[in-house]
Amino acid sequence: MSDKLWGGRFTGKAAEWVDEFGASIGFDYHLAAEDLEGSLAHVKMLGHQGIISQADADEITTGLHSLEEDLAAGKIEFSVANEDIHLNMEALLTKKIGPVAGKLHTGRSRNDQVATDFHLWVKHRLPAVKEAITELQATLLSLAEEHAGTIMPGYTHMQHAQPISYGHYLLAYFEMFQRDFERFEFNEKHTDKLPLGAAALAGTTFPIDREMVAEDLNFTDIYHNSLDAVSDRDFALEFLSNASILMVHLSRMAEELILWGTYEFNYIELSDNFSTGSSIMPQKKNADFAELVRGKSGHVFGSLMGLLTVMKGLPLAYNKDMQEDKAATFAVMDTILASIKVFTGMVSTMTVHKERMAAATKDDFSNATELADYLATKGLPFRQAHAVVGELVLKGIQEGKTLNEMSLAELQAADSHIEDDVYAELESEQAVNRRTSLGGTAVVNVLNEVNRGKSILAGHSL
Amino acid sequence: MSDKLWGGRFTGKAAEWVDEFGASIGFDYHLAAEDLEGSLAHVKMLGHQGIISQADADEITTGLHSLEEDLAAGKIEFSVANEDIHLNMEALLTKKIGPVAGKLHTGRSRNDQVATDFHLWVKHRLPAVKEAITELQATLLSLAEEHAGTIMPGYTHMQHAQPISYGHYLLAYFEMFQRDFERFEFNEKHTDKLPLGAAALAGTTFPIDREMVAEDLNFTDIYHNSLDAVSDRDFALEFLSNASILMVHLSRMAEELILWGTYEFNYIELSDNFSTGSSIMPQKKNADFAELVRGKSGHVFGSLMGLLTVMKGLPLAYNKDMQEDKAATFAVMDTILASIKVFTGMVSTMTVHKERMAAATKDDFSNATELADYLATKGLPFRQAHAVVGELVLKGIQEGKTLNEMSLAELQAADSHIEDDVYAELESEQAVNRRTSLGGTAVVNVLNEVNRGKSILAGHSL
Amino acid sequence: MSDKLWGGRFTGKAAEWVDEFGASIGFDYHLAAEDLEGSLAHVKMLGHQGIISQADADEITTGLHSLEEDLAAGKIEFSVANEDIHLNMEALLTKKIGPVAGKLHTGRSRNDQVATDFHLWVKHRLPAVKEAITELQATLLSLAEEHAGTIMPGYTHMQHAQPISYGHYLLAYFEMFQRDFERFEFNEKHTDKLPLGAAALAGTTFPIDREMVAEDLNFTDIYHNSLDAVSDRDFALEFLSNASILMVHLSRMAEELILWGTYEFNYIELSDNFSTGSSIMPQKKNADFAELVRGKSGHVFGSLMGLLTVMKGLPLAYNKDMQEDKAATFAVMDTILASIKVFTGMVSTMTVHKERMAAATKDDFSNATELADYLATKGLPFRQAHAVVGELVLKGIQEGKTLNEMSLAELQAADSHIEDDVYAELESEQAVNRRTSLGGTAVVNVLNEVNRGKSILAGHSL
Amino acid sequence: MSDKLWGGRFTGKAAEWVDEFGASIGFDYHLAAEDLEGSLAHVKMLGHQGIISQADADEITTGLHSLEEDLAAGKIEFSVANEDIHLNMEALLTKKIGPVAGKLHTGRSRNDQVATDFHLWVKHRLPAVKEAITELQATLLSLAEEHAGTIMPGYTHMQHAQPISYGHYLLAYFEMFQRDFERFEFNEKHTDKLPLGAAALAGTTFPIDREMVAEDLNFTDIYHNSLDAVSDRDFALEFLSNASILMVHLSRMAEELILWGTYEFNYIELSDNFSTGSSIMPQKKNADFAELVRGKSGHVFGSLMGLLTVMKGLPLAYNKDMQEDKAATFAVMDTILASIKVFTGMVSTMTVHKERMAAATKDDFSNATELADYLATKGLPFRQAHAVVGELVLKGIQEGKTLNEMSLAELQAADSHIEDDVYAELESEQAVNRRTSLGGTAVVNVLNEVNRGKSILAGHSL
Repeated sequence: MSDKLWGGRFTGKAAEWVDEFGASIGFDYHLAAEDLEGSLAHVKMLGHQGIISQADADEITTGLHSLEEDLAAGKIEFSVANEDIHLNMEALLTKKIGPVAGKLHTGRSRNDQVATDFHLWVKHRLPAVKEAITELQATLLSLAEEHAGTIMPGYTHMQHAQPISYGHYLLAYFEMFQRDFERFEFNEKHTDKLPLGAAALAGTTFPIDREMVAEDLNFTDIYHNSLDAVSDRDFALEFLSNASILMVHLSRMAEELILWGTYEFNYIELSDNFSTGSSIMPQKKNADFAELVRGKSGHVFGSLMGLLTVMKGLPLAYNKDMQEDKAATFAVMDTILASIKVFTGMVSTMTVHKERMAAATKDDFSNATELADYLATKGLPFRQAHAVVGELVLKGIQEGKTLNEMSLAELQAADSHIEDDVYAELESEQAVNRRTSLGGTAVVNVLNEVNRGKSILAGHSL
Repeated sequence: MSDKLWGGRFTGKAAEWVDEFGASIGFDYHLAAEDLEGSLAHVKMLGHQGIISQADADEITTGLHSLEEDLAAGKIEFSVANEDIHLNMEALLTKKIGPVAGKLHTGRSRNDQVATDFHLWVKHRLPAVKEAITELQATLLSLAEEHAGTIMPGYTHMQHAQPISYGHYLLAYFEMFQRDFERFEFNEKHTDKLPLGAAALAGTTFPIDREMVAEDLNFTDIYHNSLDAVSDRDFALEFLSNASILMVHLSRMAEELILWGTYEFNYIELSDNFSTGSSIMPQKKNADFAELVRGKSGHVFGSLMGLLTVMKGLPLAYNKDMQEDKAATFAVMDTILASIKVFTGMVSTMTVHKERMAAATKDDFSNATELADYLATKGLPFRQAHAVVGELVLKGIQEGKTLNEMSLAELQAADSHIEDDVYAELESEQAVNRRTSLGGTAVVNVLNEVNRGKSILAGHSL
Repeated sequence: MSDKLWGGRFTGKAAEWVDEFGASIGFDYHLAAEDLEGSLAHVKMLGHQGIISQADADEITTGLHSLEEDLAAGKIEFSVANEDIHLNMEALLTKKIGPVAGKLHTGRSRNDQVATDFHLWVKHRLPAVKEAITELQATLLSLAEEHAGTIMPGYTHMQHAQPISYGHYLLAYFEMFQRDFERFEFNEKHTDKLPLGAAALAGTTFPIDREMVAEDLNFTDIYHNSLDAVSDRDFALEFLSNASILMVHLSRMAEELILWGTYEFNYIELSDNFSTGSSIMPQKKNADFAELVRGKSGHVFGSLMGLLTVMKGLPLAYNKDMQEDKAATFAVMDTILASIKVFTGMVSTMTVHKERMAAATKDDFSNATELADYLATKGLPFRQAHAVVGELVLKGIQEGKTLNEMSLAELQAADSHIEDDVYAELESEQAVNRRTSLGGTAVVNVLNEVNRGKSILAGHSL
Repeated sequence: MSDKLWGGRFTGKAAEWVDEFGASIGFDYHLAAEDLEGSLAHVKMLGHQGIISQADADEITTGLHSLEEDLAAGKIEFSVANEDIHLNMEALLTKKIGPVAGKLHTGRSRNDQVATDFHLWVKHRLPAVKEAITELQATLLSLAEEHAGTIMPGYTHMQHAQPISYGHYLLAYFEMFQRDFERFEFNEKHTDKLPLGAAALAGTTFPIDREMVAEDLNFTDIYHNSLDAVSDRDFALEFLSNASILMVHLSRMAEELILWGTYEFNYIELSDNFSTGSSIMPQKKNADFAELVRGKSGHVFGSLMGLLTVMKGLPLAYNKDMQEDKAATFAVMDTILASIKVFTGMVSTMTVHKERMAAATKDDFSNATELADYLATKGLPFRQAHAVVGELVLKGIQEGKTLNEMSLAELQAADSHIEDDVYAELESEQAVNRRTSLGGTAVVNVLNEVNRGKSILAGHSL
């Protein structure tokens, strides 16, 4: 007979490498604390409901607390022979308190147990994600405030488009991370739901009290369908999807940090603490951390794709395929927490080359829109104004002159509406500060939005 | 000189196939109605703010209304030479009302225009998704009510595990679709946000009134940062992610519909209207639609991966890569709306073979847990009870007997706690109806949950 | 009774939108020519083997030829009621020649028919992919030859690392595309395999001659297992995977074309024919086509993920899910052919700013490795040499001097091994031309590799 | 000053968690053996070429050999402070032999070093993949030989379609795995290519001999472009793509093993060694390993998607993003090797219920095609024959009769061509054995194909 806990009807015994392949303890040991937490709530309820005797419940509780201490002290060793965290814990408990440990599994199954552990694990960590995002947002706000008046070229298609405030640029990321925050907050809704009590798939015949367990474990909601409780991984899919969108944002900012730190742009310089050198080229200062975060977007997208693939077409209620849900989620959680933190570090310690940014708006054509708007204000249909300016730009490129450098006569040759007041409007500071409508880049707007941002953060429930 | 609307500074001219490669009109013509809708609100505001004269505004408005009529009448022809929906519309408008059409583009850019069109397009269709989901849920509820008392084997690992109510099974999908509903509802938050007024990337110098436009277009929220407004595609990523999770659910149900319609299971038979035949094998009745939906999960997951890839590492504010956002979203919207509808059709017209389901629970070992629970109630630690039953099952398999078919003496030989009252508990109806704790499969629970489901649907805002 | 061709046992009739959902004619009409080609070979064999009379075979052949003419003339209209390309073609044939058309389907099924059409479709187009790649490679070779002596900064981590030949840079892409070529060539092996004759899944009882059909259709190989023949889509997965890796390469080059065309780098300028302008900013010249190709990598990766998802866990032999294989493959084929062509166009028409590239290597520290190598040659362990140079670079940055600008005394203060001969080695041309070992960037190497490249292309079987 | 090996110009020092985030030693320690192997070949060449003295080369070689012994003895401890495997190894070497260790890095960089290690790692393991596949193929062949005459229903759309030989079914997988074998063999081409000598990106000024290193390390080919050498990860993408297609095949077989082991199908029973039980339901025997492999397809697809994402749009030559290439490849290699081995184990130890398979073809309509073919042979156009049989099947379903059970009169009522010889052809054995054309399911074909399979395996170069 097999020596497995579930081995009653089994006569054969598998090779060691086969057991190892099937075992999940190599990664689900991360659930150790949550497994104990769930067991403590379960046994308390079993005792309270008289499903097992209070004496048994107390003995088990003592044993579980003792395991908690061992875990905290790093004294627990897991074994592949016991497959997963649940059977490992039961074996350890049995070693501590003897066969009475077997009563703990009354009215539950590994199916609802692992779902509960996993819910708890994610539920415990979402607040840390929200907090890390908030901290990054606060860093951006304070930098935006400092740089409300720092002028730089705004880019589309990587081409100088129109001058903007660097503070305004930073606030664009504030907005993205705010949506990330809201998504992880929404993620809590479907995570904060107790599966325990669903047993294998159908509920249990024992008179359990799920409300009591939920309260004990601090769950707001309870699964109302046992099949759904053990087969649902929506909360993990939501998490991986939210993490993917977050990584989109971080990778975009990473790309710009890397570009802006090049010799060619030279808008920023990362601090030594967030750069690395080369083993062969002593002059290098590499934005390794930004690159690494950008690269890690691949791992996160892939993990989402992976779990979607796992869940596709899977019949109810539980299948072993679902064991593949956890390793990816654990790794992605680590990845995003560290990535956000790295960004907060990079952004708060970098040096901003303000003059260099401003200078880049002085000898380009990023003020061309100003001229087109100027002409439209004088009554030209915008399309016609656009064409006039296009020709002036072409002339400028050919003759090596910016619009500001052209004489009034030259400008008027293109269109007679142009007058001497045009030069003021061609200044990049002016271009920035005239954009005062809601969402525009004017310095006054930036400062207002910083204040709005601060009250948003003040309202973040963490 | 180039004859493009943006061609002012261009001297060369591209080959036709190059234009075609760059053009988006092949798919963004889907935005035609939204483009006109956005333009109408924009021009109304331009007139109201005195940015263009009221007379010009009126003329443009009339032209746009006329285009709306042409569109409704299917009279509009788009041209690749005009690249995208925006330039096509402007060209058509110019043809109708002459150069004054050029004033419409005052204070906006294609960057905020396409973002607005796209937001509107998704915003207009999310309610249809929510409605289709609600209809499918209602169908499941009514079927669950009818089949509250229909007994079938519950499966884990595709093995008979414990008997359940078929109604209970159906409600598991009700719960999944409820979470889908909530996700699409949350999706509305970040979709319902006006980008117009961000212009190219920095806002505009014209005294526009974005609140007025937002009200006109029925937007609840407005982007507070112009860079973010033109570069954000979170709402589309959320949509594709929600659609992917929905397809996970549909593909799981599809898998089971297909399996349960096999010769071997024979639990259900799809109606002729939702089956197809074979060109070579006249006896076949294929669950083609369920298979197709299951297969379409690939397209939806792939579309999500596609857009994540597009957005990864993209510098602000707008890059042409983002043109790739729409085709996928349009196709996925069609796919999920049709898929949900097909499911509502399949589920509401199929025949359920109740007797066959029930029979499948009679000569198997799906009541083994009942015996283990019975023994646990008699005081055996659950683990020991599990082992006793395991040996009885092994004996049963070897001797070709179910547990019910064993004599009391045989049962008692395994464990002396077993008494005559055991036989009643081994009946599958009993096994179902004893699972009355919250979320359990008992018939009474199913009926309660149907009622709860009905009030949930009553609360759906559509 | 249903009016479907497979409708014998069906009594109900589906709603139109349901038919539309199930129909594939919306995209598999692309297979029209291949469907006729396959049918012609099939009927020829049926006649030759006496499975149908020669007279019937001739009549059918005439009908199929007539359909080929209609197709070429654009005169064929497909109908959703006939579901797919196969039933559409059969209906059209029946209309032309009456019920004898029904004999064409003898000994085959839609399962092996669609597999054959799809194999043919890909088989016909792989040579075009190889040809387009070869043309792009040839363009790169000729540009590399022209620019063997053009010096530019080589980058790692987007930082100036060491000076390289621009021709050397171009040849890196030549190598990548060579591997792409080899992958698509390998792709032909599993594409060039005839499925016809597998019938529905098991082969047929008719005395067909598959070798004859294979020869007629120019297939080198034949599926040796009927189940495999109808259920295999490896060739399409290989194609999508190869296309994805190709897009990785194109997207990398796209990224660099975009960067190098910025105001900040200004290394290249794309021709007007491969750039676009802005609807609001007349000065813009956007690398739209490079961006679009970069963006389309998302669609291609997503299509690969999509088909992997479709095929995952699909039981043999045929399931409707597999209908999802074609639309993605068709679209990806179009995408990659156009993308490669666009690159050939962009690269062959762009202007290279050689002086600007060279200048960028003059006032940076990209010659730091030269100094380290110099010191290592003088006997310092490389790690120590690296440290010495690192300190000199730091001093240089602090004092605003390049290494060339430091006096011999300053250099010797850091390490006494340095002598006057160091200055020559610090020149970027020297740095390039001293790297003569195989694969190094020396101009002489570049010219050798151009020649090697030419003989590789000469050996391409197209 | 930083204490990093590359720290010359750095003044700050990073926090420990930042170092940890950037470090790769947590996974690239897997490259330890390959790193030493590469270093040994490099130093041998440095000595031979006189780039360093032979005495230095010997000292370093002795040190490296001593590290090899430590590694084999499990005595090496890696440190996060030393970032990656290369700097760890250099530090360990320095500890052993002092500063002369610093000479080892002459003429190479971590960029070409890691590429070399990674190539070696994959190159060393591809043969094991090919061997494992071959072993699985051999197992399938021997099972197919045993079951050439075992009749079972062939399925399409999971419906009984036509009777087939179970041996024929098994050979379908033989063919799939043969294509997998060929793909991994092709994978060797682009893996078996030496990057070392490319140095950081541009080659080196030292007179290295790459041919000598290649020969020493057993590389057939050498990268001809230094930029390509350090930036190419095609071989890893090919590997992940091949692994994904392999997992498609394994997941399909897994799905069928799971289904066929259900109570409903009962075609096979997995051995106890490749099944597991339930912690709550003693009667369960779960195909956990098949499910796990099916689930692991998600991880493998996701890893492919991940690396595609990482590489997308990455400028040459090396960026830290590429550090993300290894962990995924390492894990996928483990996954596929174990998965294939598990399949060989499952398939070679399972019990096949031949009678049950055969019985399933006796009371269904899987012989309907036989009747249609029979009628077509009598001269009816196939489409008409199909319709006649469709009506008979409908009648049979309604009256509860198979075709064999209908009287001749009943059959003739449907079509007068039917005669008494029809009954023999309706037998499933007949149906199987009449399919003798190439690729058909006839027993004689199966045995032929087994022999062909054996010679294919005999030709596998391992």
